[in-house]
Amino acid sequence: MEFQTKIGRSTADTIQVHGYDLAEDLIGKITLADMAFLGAKHRIPTEQESKMLNAILVAICEHGFTPSSISTRLTYLGAPEAVQAAVAAGLLGAGTVYLGAMEYVAEMLQKAFAQFGDDKNIEELATVVIKDRKEKGLQFPGFGHHIHKVVDPRTGKLFEIAEETGFLGKHSLLLLEIHRQFCEEKGKKITLNAVGAIGAIMSDMEIDYRVVKSFAVASRAVGLVAHLVEEIDKGRKDSIAQQLFEYVEDNTDYRG
Amino acid sequence: MEFQTKIGRSTADTIQVHGYDLAEDLIGKITLADMAFLGAKHRIPTEQESKMLNAILVAICEHGFTPSSISTRLTYLGAPEAVQAAVAAGLLGAGTVYLGAMEYVAEMLQKAFAQFGDDKNIEELATVVIKDRKEKGLQFPGFGHHIHKVVDPRTGKLFEIAEETGFLGKHSLLLLEIHRQFCEEKGKKITLNAVGAIGAIMSDMEIDYRVVKSFAVASRAVGLVAHLVEEIDKGRKDSIAQQLFEYVEDNTDYRG
Amino acid sequence: MEFQTKIGRSTADTIQVHGYDLAEDLIGKITLADMAFLGAKHRIPTEQESKMLNAILVAICEHGFTPSSISTRLTYLGAPEAVQAAVAAGLLGAGTVYLGAMEYVAEMLQKAFAQFGDDKNIEELATVVIKDRKEKGLQFPGFGHHIHKVVDPRTGKLFEIAEETGFLGKHSLLLLEIHRQFCEEKGKKITLNAVGAIGAIMSDMEIDYRVVKSFAVASRAVGLVAHLVEEIDKGRKDSIAQQLFEYVEDNTDYRG
Amino acid sequence: MEFQTKIGRSTADTIQVHGYDLAEDLIGKITLADMAFLGAKHRIPTEQESKMLNAILVAICEHGFTPSSISTRLTYLGAPEAVQAAVAAGLLGAGTVYLGAMEYVAEMLQKAFAQFGDDKNIEELATVVIKDRKEKGLQFPGFGHHIHKVVDPRTGKLFEIAEETGFLGKHSLLLLEIHRQFCEEKGKKITLNAVGAIGAIMSDMEIDYRVVKSFAVASRAVGLVAHLVEEIDKGRKDSIAQQLFEYVEDNTDYRG
Repeated sequence: MEFQTKIGRSTADTIQVHGYDLAEDLIGKITLADMAFLGAKHRIPTEQESKMLNAILVAICEHGFTPSSISTRLTYLGAPEAVQAAVAAGLLGAGTVYLGAMEYVAEMLQKAFAQFGDDKNIEELATVVIKDRKEKGLQFPGFGHHIHKVVDPRTGKLFEIAEETGFLGKHSLLLLEIHRQFCEEKGKKITLNAVGAIGAIMSDMEIDYRVVKSFAVASRAVGLVAHLVEEIDKGRKDSIAQQLFEYVEDNTDYRG
Repeated sequence: MEFQTKIGRSTADTIQVHGYDLAEDLIGKITLADMAFLGAKHRIPTEQESKMLNAILVAICEHGFTPSSISTRLTYLGAPEAVQAAVAAGLLGAGTVYLGAMEYVAEMLQKAFAQFGDDKNIEELATVVIKDRKEKGLQFPGFGHHIHKVVDPRTGKLFEIAEETGFLGKHSLLLLEIHRQFCEEKGKKITLNAVGAIGAIMSDMEIDYRVVKSFAVASRAVGLVAHLVEEIDKGRKDSIAQQLFEYVEDNTDYRG
Repeated sequence: MEFQTKIGRSTADTIQVHGYDLAEDLIGKITLADMAFLGAKHRIPTEQESKMLNAILVAICEHGFTPSSISTRLTYLGAPEAVQAAVAAGLLGAGTVYLGAMEYVAEMLQKAFAQFGDDKNIEELATVVIKDRKEKGLQFPGFGHHIHKVVDPRTGKLFEIAEETGFLGKHSLLLLEIHRQFCEEKGKKITLNAVGAIGAIMSDMEIDYRVVKSFAVASRAVGLVAHLVEEIDKGRKDSIAQQLFEYVEDNTDYRG
Repeated sequence: MEFQTKIGRSTADTIQVHGYDLAEDLIGKITLADMAFLGAKHRIPTEQESKMLNAILVAICEHGFTPSSISTRLTYLGAPEAVQAAVAAGLLGAGTVYLGAMEYVAEMLQKAFAQFGDDKNIEELATVVIKDRKEKGLQFPGFGHHIHKVVDPRTGKLFEIAEETGFLGKHSLLLLEIHRQFCEEKGKKITLNAVGAIGAIMSDMEIDYRVVKSFAVASRAVGLVAHLVEEIDKGRKDSIAQQLFEYVEDNTDYRG
């Protein structure tokens, strides 16, 4: 047997997924988000884990008009026969600029404990991390937001649920302390954004930083449904994509 | 104001999504799947709707190795820097062949009531639909499965939950009757597959057939997380993609 | 040996492509466009074929700002680490609406000769094709253009080169005759667009209608290079994608 | 006017591309590859530039079965209605692992002259570059090949054409010298691969390293045409994608 997998397999009358019987154990018993958890951890989440993960994925699912959702709409305009391509086009923009921070925060925090040891207290460890990143010329992911200049409304809510579900652990505390020292040094309040909070909370849920971003991408796919629905409802002529395209056509200054 | 949307918008301290406050009304209160429902219906689902929708999306989320999930793994092999591209590549294969049936079933059923009227009883209506499709040379979507030759294990479970949640409505009954007459005529039992059941149940949830497929695509994106996680865990050299690629390299017969 | 291919294979010191030695026979001897021809026909094109194909692919390569090229730019804004994803996003919009016609024209013409025979003269055959499409409720692909209302500047040039290279054959003549009769009937001049001309000329080059569109998609990929270059040159802040995104943000009317 | 572009614009009877009239100046006069050059440099290439660029793009266009071309085939299997999606899926794997080197070589060489000055002779400069990369722990792009262990058959041919067309300039000489010193130090011959040669030659053609990769991606799109044609010719049941999928299905060892 060539290809070993833990994911699943179908026989004539059963479907096995990560050791569970899809029809008997999963359908009707767990949520869609839990399927992502199952994929990452090979077990069904606890009630607390499910609540936390759904909260996280709901938080980053929808952002209104973004480069990403606009691409989905433009793609649907040209290829209405292939809804999957429109969703894919939207996901392709979910790269380092907008979603990268989630992974970078998780990486920063997970590596901090791995490299600089668990023996330091959080305050010392935060100082070490800040010093280390500065020396290496690295930016601080998870801080700042181009619209939510002071407070990202999702951040507090996410940490609140993390506390309630038992996931306000050492990674979250480290991020909060790094943020505190970072703002103190700058002498001003810089937003701790939702993507930062999520990177920390997912670390406290023991999700490897290298797979954090794929959760975010999956959540975005769910969010893009709404944009396709709106384009379909408006109809081709009145679609946002058509209006936008016409606007660009009418406002182009060609200097060939 | 040029671009009218019901989806959402951010201000400095709030995020509005479909008329709800994201932080106050949605995060921690609804599931990821509910965000797709919200996108399609502009309202939060009831508890019953949420249960039904999560069951549906869990049912079609994961299929083990498929052309789609293999593409995701192959893409990750070449572009590990862009997880979003690997997910997108997997979605691109979710076209007419594997996922189309869900939409076609919903379309067949929704148009049946619209075109041939609600006045017929289900038995008569099924006969009319079958006759009409035959005359037009159209296939019957939702029937048959290349692995589940007799029974798709998800179908019964989904209809069971549909009954429990109040969504075993006229569209589901019509599909079941079309299936009964179809098998009777063929003189053998042909699988009523999960994708067929979902097309019917989503119709009974009053979801427009034109947006049905985008739900399925979103669910697939969640399922692809597991495949990325497995490739990352195995490491480049032992990844399924690498093994597969080497197998193809070693077993190619070139007849240029 | 499992996988039979005519395409190619590498050994330690040679690369074979469609029966040619890549280094000795192809590099420096044929053009990029000829590689697509080689892929479709398993032989190097003649000088005439190469000239005609390059002319066709140059004609459809670049269209300025389109939904497709805008998607490429928006995707690059979010994922500058993955140029391949930006090109892919642009291609995804090259669906039925904008590029489909090329294939549909080729299909209409190739099937006309196959179904209604070569025994009819072009005039009669055109009349039969028009009658047949009307009876089936099919549209006429290749006619009309939203900007080039009277004459598509590429059409005449392409037919001119087709004549010069020997590819103004029966398919082109049939399309021109269908167009003539179609305009006569409508009582007005309707543009015979470039995509229509190309569908006809590629048929006269004996390229199967089912593969016509993949040539167009490849040409678009080349065209998208210019859009990426322009975004890179302008820099993130002054990029078209950023400007466009800001315009949308500032002009959204949210009615949640 | 909001959106300034040098790329192009259409009016009712003309199409302008980078200052040229598409129908009069470009169609029938330049090759497809030249359109990419035009996009990068805003001028038509000289005959020498066109020959060199076509040679480069032909060299990297086709690689037989790769993760990339296999993804294209698998995607077509699931979504034959959307050829553009199949091409896009193939491009998505053209990431850092297989194509990145072209850009990294160009970057290494272009920055070498910019940072360490033109005053050094090539031998000294090569030594400085090697020392610098080692200190930074950076790998050497453009060296080594998993099949062409000693000589990449494309490399010599490309440098031969570069010499003939006048593009064997300082960047190429620097790469050759880095390669010589690198092999000397290792005490064995390591392949200077085609992707490395191309990074050097494109630098000598004065193409910015940041846009090098988009040329490669475009070339790959052309190469993928052959894979789609082969799948279409073989037909669904005998397609490579279907065979491969069945092989995986039959050889999966599920350990859930």
